[in-house]
Order: sequence, then C-alpha cells, then structure tokens
Amino acid sequence: MEKQIREGIWETLKKIREEHPAVPSITSTVTQEFVANSQLAVGGSAAMIYLTDEGETVAKNFPAFYMNFGTVFPFYEESVPAILKALNENKTPFVLDPVGIGLGELRTILLSMAKDFKPAIIRGNASEIMALAKLWNLADTPRAKRTRFLESDDKVSAAKDSANALAKFTGGAVAVSGADDLIVGYFEDKLTDVVCPGGSELLTKITGAGCSLGGMMGICAAVAKPFIAALTATVIFNRAAEYAERDACGPGTFRAKFLDGLYKLTPDDVAFNSTRDFKLND
Amino acid sequence: MEKQIREGIWETLKKIREEHPAVPSITSTVTQEFVANSQLAVGGSAAMIYLTDEGETVAKNFPAFYMNFGTVFPFYEESVPAILKALNENKTPFVLDPVGIGLGELRTILLSMAKDFKPAIIRGNASEIMALAKLWNLADTPRAKRTRFLESDDKVSAAKDSANALAKFTGGAVAVSGADDLIVGYFEDKLTDVVCPGGSELLTKITGAGCSLGGMMGICAAVAKPFIAALTATVIFNRAAEYAERDACGPGTFRAKFLDGLYKLTPDDVAFNSTRDFKLND
Amino acid sequence: MEKQIREGIWETLKKIREEHPAVPSITSTVTQEFVANSQLAVGGSAAMIYLTDEGETVAKNFPAFYMNFGTVFPFYEESVPAILKALNENKTPFVLDPVGIGLGELRTILLSMAKDFKPAIIRGNASEIMALAKLWNLADTPRAKRTRFLESDDKVSAAKDSANALAKFTGGAVAVSGADDLIVGYFEDKLTDVVCPGGSELLTKITGAGCSLGGMMGICAAVAKPFIAALTATVIFNRAAEYAERDACGPGTFRAKFLDGLYKLTPDDVAFNSTRDFKLND
Repeated sequence: MEKQIREGIWETLKKIREEHPAVPSITSTVTQEFVANSQLAVGGSAAMIYLTDEGETVAKNFPAFYMNFGTVFPFYEESVPAILKALNENKTPFVLDPVGIGLGELRTILLSMAKDFKPAIIRGNASEIMALAKLWNLADTPRAKRTRFLESDDKVSAAKDSANALAKFTGGAVAVSGADDLIVGYFEDKLTDVVCPGGSELLTKITGAGCSLGGMMGICAAVAKPFIAALTATVIFNRAAEYAERDACGPGTFRAKFLDGLYKLTPDDVAFNSTRDFKLND
Repeated sequence: MEKQIREGIWETLKKIREEHPAVPSITSTVTQEFVANSQLAVGGSAAMIYLTDEGETVAKNFPAFYMNFGTVFPFYEESVPAILKALNENKTPFVLDPVGIGLGELRTILLSMAKDFKPAIIRGNASEIMALAKLWNLADTPRAKRTRFLESDDKVSAAKDSANALAKFTGGAVAVSGADDLIVGYFEDKLTDVVCPGGSELLTKITGAGCSLGGMMGICAAVAKPFIAALTATVIFNRAAEYAERDACGPGTFRAKFLDGLYKLTPDDVAFNSTRDFKLND
Repeated sequence: MEKQIREGIWETLKKIREEHPAVPSITSTVTQEFVANSQLAVGGSAAMIYLTDEGETVAKNFPAFYMNFGTVFPFYEESVPAILKALNENKTPFVLDPVGIGLGELRTILLSMAKDFKPAIIRGNASEIMALAKLWNLADTPRAKRTRFLESDDKVSAAKDSANALAKFTGGAVAVSGADDLIVGYFEDKLTDVVCPGGSELLTKITGAGCSLGGMMGICAAVAKPFIAALTATVIFNRAAEYAERDACGPGTFRAKFLDGLYKLTPDDVAFNSTRDFKLND
C-alpha cells in the first residue's frame, strides 16, 4: 500500500505544478497573506472572499475551497451558511480548519453547522480536533478547560480517537497537526492512518503555519482525494520547514525560506526522497 | 519625446524621495501589508481606511488615493460611493484597480459606479482591463467566460483596444500588467503608449504584486501626471523584481528583496540606466 | 534605581521566554500579521479578535490585551465598549495605541471612551500622544493641524508634558516612540522617565513597526508592571532593529531579520549588554 500512497503524493504534486489549481478561501485576516503565498508557492493559486454571492460563484467555478474561522466577522452569520450550502450543492470539496473553536458564540454556531456539510478534510491541532469531535457529538473526550484557544493543550496522540470518529463520520480525511502529524482517512475505501514526523520548531514561532497547511490541503484537494491531499500537503509542509530551518537565523528568515522550500521541492523530493518519512500504521 | 519621458520618470522618483507623499488606500485585506510596505519602500507613505468619513477626510487632505476591491465588505456599499464623491469634489486623483471584476454583485456595482468619477489611472491585468471596458460600455470585446477571476486569461496585447478606449474616456492613463506591461495615456495632450518589458516570473508566485504596483502608482500620482505616474511605478516595479530575482532562492526571499530593490533603486537607475528598457510605440 | 530597573527588564524577558504568555489584540488588519509574528518572536503568543463575546471571553482568560484602532470597522461601535468594560471588570491590563487619532468620528469616540478604563500602557508617536492628552482634556498642547495622521509631526520631546499628564492620570506608563523613545511611568510608586536611544531608520520604512512595539508591550504587561513592561518592549525592539540593520539590504530583509533579532536576543543582551543604553532622567 505504501507504494500506491507514494505514487499518489507524487501525482498530486505533479498535477498541481502543471494545472496550478486556484482554490478560494474564507479565512483569517491575520494569516490571509501567508495562506495565499503558501498556496502560490506550492504551485496553486489563491482567492480570498467574504460575501455570500462571491462564495456561491466560486463554489460553482472552482475545484475546492478552504474554510478557516480564525477571525470571524458579524456578517459571516449570513454568508457562511450560504457558502457551505453552495459547496455542498456543487459537490465542491472543502477543508475545514476549526481554529479558535470554543471562542465566541458565532464561531461555535458556524462550526456546528459545518457538520451537515461533511468537509472533505478537517485540519487542526489536537485540542481543536478533540473539541470539534465533541461539538459534533462524535466523541465525548474528557478534557481540560482550554485557556489558550489558539494553541494545543493536548498531544497529537490524544486526538486519535476523535480523528477516527470524525473521519468515519465525514468519509474523508482528518489531519492532526503537531510535533508529529497524524493523518486519518480513507485510502482505497480502507480507513488508514499515517504519522508524519519532521517539520521545525520554528513553525510554532510564526503566525499562520497551521492556516498555511490547511490552505495547501485545499490546493491538493483540487486534484486528489482527501487522504492523499491531506498527506501530500503535510509532507511538503514538513520538508519545506526543514529546508527553511537549515539556514534560518530566526522566525523572520525562516518564514521567507519556508515559502522558498514549498516552491523548490519537486514531486520526487516529497514522495520518494524524504529525509524523515511518514509511517503507515497498520 | 523619449527624452522628456525619461526626465519625467526621474523627476517623479526624485520628488517621492524628497516629499514622501502619503497616499491612503481602500484595498484588499490580503495584500494591505504588502501594498503599504511597497509604498513605504519606494519612498512614500501609506494609510489604509474603510469608513465613509475617514475617506472623506483623506480625500480632502491627501494628494492621491488608491482604490482596490480585491476583498469587499458589505459596508462598502455606503462608504465607497461617498469616498468616490469626495475624491471627485476635491479633484484628488485616484488609481482604480479592478481586481476580481465579475466576482460578486457588490464589486460590480462599485466598479460600474467608478466610471462616473474618471480614475486618473486604471491598473489591471489584460482580462481585468478588457472586462472593465466592457462593463463601462466602451468596448465590446468578445471574450471567453472567466474561470479564475484573479488571473489573466488574456495576453496584454489583447487588451490594447480596451486600454485605449478607457484612456480616451478618462483622459488619464491605463496600465495593463503582464509579461510585458502596456501603459496607455496622455503625455503632453497626445495619447501615447509604451511597452515595458522585464520584471520577473516570481512576481506571479507572490500574492499582491499587482496591488503593490497599483499602490505605487498612487504614490507617483501624488507628484506626477497619470501617464508618467503609471510609467514610473511600472519601471521601478520591474527593475526591483529583476534586482530581487538575482539572488532569490524562491518567492519568500524574492518578496523581501523586492522591497529592498524598491528602496535602493535611484532615479538615475530607473530613468536612465535600465537594463531592459521601455519602448515607445509611435 | 537603575540596577532594579535592569533587573526588572531581565526578569520580564526571562518570564516571557518561560511562560509564553498569550495576549489577544483588537488591531489593524494591515499590521495584524506583523504584530502576531513580533509577539511570537519575542516569546509570547497572539490571538486577534473582533467580536464582543470573543473580547469578553479573552478579557477573563488572558493576562493582558492590546488595543489598536489602526483600522476601524463599523461594528467596533458595539464590540469595543463591551471589551473595554470586560477588561476593566477583570482588571486585565491593556495597552492602548491611539494610531490614526483624529481620523474619523468612530475612532475618536472609541479613543475618548478608553479614558474611563485607564489603559495600563499608552503607546504612540509624539503627535498621537499629544493628541490623546488633548482629547482627554489632560493638557491643551497648542499644535499644528495634522496632515498625515499616521506619522508624527512632532518631536518626542514635544510630547513630554502630555506623556506626564497621561501617566499621572492613568497611574500606568506612557511610551512616546520616535528617534529616541521616551517612557514615562511609575516605578516603585515614583513617576520616572527614561529615554531609550537606538533602533533603526529602517523602522520608518516598514508598516506596523509601532504596532509591533505596542503588541510586545502587551506581552510584557502579562508578566510585569506597566513601566517595566513598556521599557522592556522598547529596549528589545531597539536592539532587534539594530541587529537587523547590520546586514539588511533594505526594508524587506530588515523586516525578516528584525523578527530574528526579537527571537535571538537574550535577557542578558537586553538588560545588561546593550550597545546603546537607556538614560534615566532624574
């Protein structure tokens, strides 16, 4: 199976470099620019939108969508439900990023509503994935009161059951980001999970690293099935971070070189020549 | 005529470096930071605003304005018409950037309305310029249904007639951005057009390159007439991109060095010592 | 006294590097990303919010808050008063950044209202500090009509009386940013002022330098009293700028290396080994 997975990663990145899929987002004003630059660097294209009819149009005309509620505007109450509906009607796969889950009523309403529209990929840190599974009544993980909202209070391994429950419910993929990333999803109709080591500690010192990963999962979802899309984005994300860390002097130069890495890494680099590689859990 | 144009470019950049004109914008949340940093790097100053009375105040107190609807908020329905009116009453020249034209009803309403206020400079890619000429009923270019909205489906040359029609209508300048940029506008009361080669392929791998160019045209429009303003911004933009490309490792380091280039290039570098120079079409 | 102040700076930075305090903000869409990256680089953590109940929640759960009205949305009319009230009820110290004071009615309403909630730290350039003291009827500084709004028309020294008046009123600290920064505030119940030289001219060529400083004052206010918090942020800000200037080629590379500097500078570097040091005014 590992061979087919590697070929899937290779083909996904190859297609992105040839087709440059454009994947719109509704995402945080803090990290929009970094998400767009990550999507462009990896070989795709970006378009950030806010309004209902913009969302309805892109849901019809674009191959995938990225939805992140890192910052929430009051008018999302009208636009987001309509956009979710349009994505569903057009069978446009979307990545859901439950960043900040638990903070504010409107974010909770929107994240609860997203359940009915079964995101192709759900990406978050361990605490976010556990909180989403709980919000969707798919698992009642006992957990400590969150105090930071935007960072994980839990280890990736702690979110394994929640990730499984979410993947079984959506039929797509779930990516738990952390020191080692966990990807759970269906590969050839079999629920599969992979652990992806690597990346860089400096990723925790720049804002929007997780959003960048989610945005790239959106690009990958334009040309691949959810599990391979989530895995491809995660592997190139980690390799680019390792590339950047090599001669970065700190988070500022790391951030610039990380985008360079996304741009320079080839399908072969990512699928076959990884220094620190993913592990299939059977 | 070329001699006077070169002198015009030189004087424009010289004035910017001496006077540091501050030019406010209403622009995309995705690229605001890059526009502001480009305006600062080239020698000017930035101020991003959203609200009606803010726009009315800056229209009165600032020498030029940059208007870009890359992202649209619902309240633009009230603020933008009032700001356009205030710019007009104060004879404050503004640059219009029809990015995303065709996506969403509100953007279309705002771009249609802008016709009555004759922007000093219109800047867009070929598809955007052709779509705007069509929206304003100045040319009926037959064209394919756009599927990407934020990228050009057309070559710069295809937008020549539309650019001419727009320039004749506004009496200002029109800049069509692409591999070779086309600037059409009035120089000493004569409709003139110039092709500007150069730049870098990496400009297509960072978000907001076009917005950065538009924002700098706003800075130039504070101290020069539309045609020279559009041309000066385009030439320094291309030279800075070439400077950055020389030792960039990818889009991340390119983006940082591009801002360095805008800051370091002198009026002589831009007006007289260009490696790849503009061509006057007679 | 200087010895205790140096120890205070050292302890503040030491605590930040150990505890990584997360400090939410309501701040400009233009500079959110740079503020968040500065807060992360110095050792803290960020969370940008917009909505009333988000603000009420973070006011309860986080140690400090940063409030900057660089860009103002219409809905701030409801959310900001509620957030100010929540900060006050929870005795959560906040940094107020009166950027753009005088531009637009809503910004003026919000800045006037902030008076009743006595910010722990007020940070701005000389013109902003003078304008705020005037708005709060604490000093009637005769001053020229502002024409740029986002830049200072006055020297730091000109704002000394206004800074003193504001510090006496709030009982906290006031930081006047400029070529040499002035910090006025209570140290061991004695109104004290310090001048901090250094920094870099390139700070005026990037957007959000002041916001970055304000955001870091928020991080410092999570672990230290206002005067030491304002001073610690100012000193590391200046040292990081000097570090960045050393091998920057312009504002783009400077911006990246500035974040590197914030990340690399140690408590010893900042508190005891400063090349250009602060001066206590007795």
